[in-house]
Amino acid sequence: MQLFWRKGYGATSIAEILEQADVKSGSLYHFFPGKQDLLLAVLERYREGLRPMLLDPAWARVSDPVARVFALLARYRASLVQTDCTYGCPIGALALELHEPDPPVREALAVNFRGWTSAVEECLALAGPRLPADVDRRELAQLVLTVMEGGVMQARTHRDVAYFDGSVRQLAAYFDELGKRARAGSLRHRNTRPTRAVSSPAPSPAPKPRRR
Amino acid sequence: MQLFWRKGYGATSIAEILEQADVKSGSLYHFFPGKQDLLLAVLERYREGLRPMLLDPAWARVSDPVARVFALLARYRASLVQTDCTYGCPIGALALELHEPDPPVREALAVNFRGWTSAVEECLALAGPRLPADVDRRELAQLVLTVMEGGVMQARTHRDVAYFDGSVRQLAAYFDELGKRARAGSLRHRNTRPTRAVSSPAPSPAPKPRRR
Repeated sequence: MQLFWRKGYGATSIAEILEQADVKSGSLYHFFPGKQDLLLAVLERYREGLRPMLLDPAWARVSDPVARVFALLARYRASLVQTDCTYGCPIGALALELHEPDPPVREALAVNFRGWTSAVEECLALAGPRLPADVDRRELAQLVLTVMEGGVMQARTHRDVAYFDGSVRQLAAYFDELGKRARAGSLRHRNTRPTRAVSSPAPSPAPKPRRR
Repeated sequence: MQLFWRKGYGATSIAEILEQADVKSGSLYHFFPGKQDLLLAVLERYREGLRPMLLDPAWARVSDPVARVFALLARYRASLVQTDCTYGCPIGALALELHEPDPPVREALAVNFRGWTSAVEECLALAGPRLPADVDRRELAQLVLTVMEGGVMQARTHRDVAYFDGSVRQLAAYFDELGKRARAGSLRHRNTRPTRAVSSPAPSPAPKPRRR
């Protein structure tokens, strides 16, 4: 898991895996006849880890559903900052590194993406009337994944977290526009109580950087 | 260029390059002492090709600046469709494949991203009052790149262009919200002429797919 993440799948040799795991080749081949079997096990581990390793820590002190979306993105920001912007999403990196992945590998990558977007979609469903009724929650959740992946890619390439922050800030601005429209709609129809701003209390990702 | 794009940098051997280019190793090493020198030349070629190979064809019959943003995204959609969703953006793929790229390679990738976002930023500047004055055009251009890269990544992983379309449709919805705010602002301030809808005449990327 560590080697595939740090070096990539193709660049990791079986010899390195044996050394890192401190096992003999017979033991490795007994459980994982080929390198791809090991990759499938790694992807399954990521799938199992989605809630305990990623969502639960991100959401431990955040209950507001929209704030949870931005708290999840903030986890990736923290990983970028901690690694001096060498961090990459392991699933996204494999999705682009493997140029013609075998169907089981591709499906295991897709399952990971689906788990992530489904968790975000649940948050957006819980946001209820704070988003306009005509906004497709699943599609918006896919945009959140897009923003994470595209933001990480640019921050990593420029070695500057400001590129991640910029895309997240634009996403937050989109949520604000949607929230305004939802409030205007609910006022127009029947509800005269103002509803809460859609993206508060999500903290804004970071102070606005200088223009580059 | 073709091999790095189709197979990835790490998976391409010098032997394959020699065979594909039909040259002897002495000739290759004379011009490119190492594989990385060849990669730098490929990235320089992409940089030079941005306008003639990508922007000019995408914008040949599109003059509206906002429509140009979506016409550029439509080029990537066409590449996905033509390749049965095995297409990947060559720059994005290298940005994630190379886990610790040497500084000149990383800078060459960043230069490519900067050229792309600058071209989009010019369109957004030309959109003028159709976008609110307080919207940072450079940051919004970075979001457009994010949407392309994240959309391509998901479409490729799910082997389904609907995942690209979904993110583009959400981006178009954001542009529409910004356009409404710009019109409301211009009406409120001094201009009583309604301005044009911000994202028209951009065609919507595709009909809405069934929910999955």
